[in-house]
Amino acid sequence: AHRQWAAHGWAAAADGMALVTSVVRVQQLLMERIDPVLKQHGLTFARYEILRLLAFSQAGRMPMMRLGSLLQVHPASVTSAVDRLQAQGYVDRERRTDDRRVVLASLTDVGRAVVERATLDLNEVFSTPGIGPDDVRDLTDLLTRLRGAAGDTVQR
Amino acid sequence: AHRQWAAHGWAAAADGMALVTSVVRVQQLLMERIDPVLKQHGLTFARYEILRLLAFSQAGRMPMMRLGSLLQVHPASVTSAVDRLQAQGYVDRERRTDDRRVVLASLTDVGRAVVERATLDLNEVFSTPGIGPDDVRDLTDLLTRLRGAAGDTVQR
Repeated sequence: AHRQWAAHGWAAAADGMALVTSVVRVQQLLMERIDPVLKQHGLTFARYEILRLLAFSQAGRMPMMRLGSLLQVHPASVTSAVDRLQAQGYVDRERRTDDRRVVLASLTDVGRAVVERATLDLNEVFSTPGIGPDDVRDLTDLLTRLRGAAGDTVQR
Repeated sequence: AHRQWAAHGWAAAADGMALVTSVVRVQQLLMERIDPVLKQHGLTFARYEILRLLAFSQAGRMPMMRLGSLLQVHPASVTSAVDRLQAQGYVDRERRTDDRRVVLASLTDVGRAVVERATLDLNEVFSTPGIGPDDVRDLTDLLTRLRGAAGDTVQR
């Protein structure tokens, strides 16, 4: 497709188009491996990311707003994911004792057990992405640079 | 997150996890720019890709099965996208004269006009992905290598 793009006089955009289709396809390939693993635990990738962040946090709880900013998703998406996780018994909602306006999502014991099991299963996918460790790091660096250019503040 | 991943004894998987979250986020960033542009033309990225392939093909028509294999999506996804494109008046379905079993998707004049207009608008996104041309090419190469490892046959 790249050649045709260039042949049609869109040379400047041809590389960008190749990049976009590659990103779309790689995400699809990764999710084809990740989704079935998470489905066994009743999770989507978005809900898994929330549980993972909570499990990493000191007290297993975090303000909803903070989850949204760390995952860079809309607060409404966090709300609906946490609704679902709460219905599954994996998180509770609490209010911070020193500031009742702040709503926290808090990992339950069941939620913690689920995220640990899901992580063990996922690690198999994460540790064999199909390219070597140096390529993985180069690729992540370039993606991170693109995110930075779009205004993401990326912590590694 | 990468540091915590490694600290939890999942060093082997830490880089893979960083890669997955980066890919997911970059796809999201790109689609945040692409979706509104395509929406103005009544298109999604999946439907745009089909119109684009048809417009690049010699006679503006292609077997449905071939669209699926070029885009590496399930035949059912091609069917539903073409249903929608047909309802919009952008493609027709035909049968190949020399083999009536083969169903072709065929670009209409309206469809061709729409995909050309959408492409002009999209080129602006594609030509300014936020990183330099060398980085774009390196990034695409690495993504292509990952696709190859997953069994994709990638033509550029």
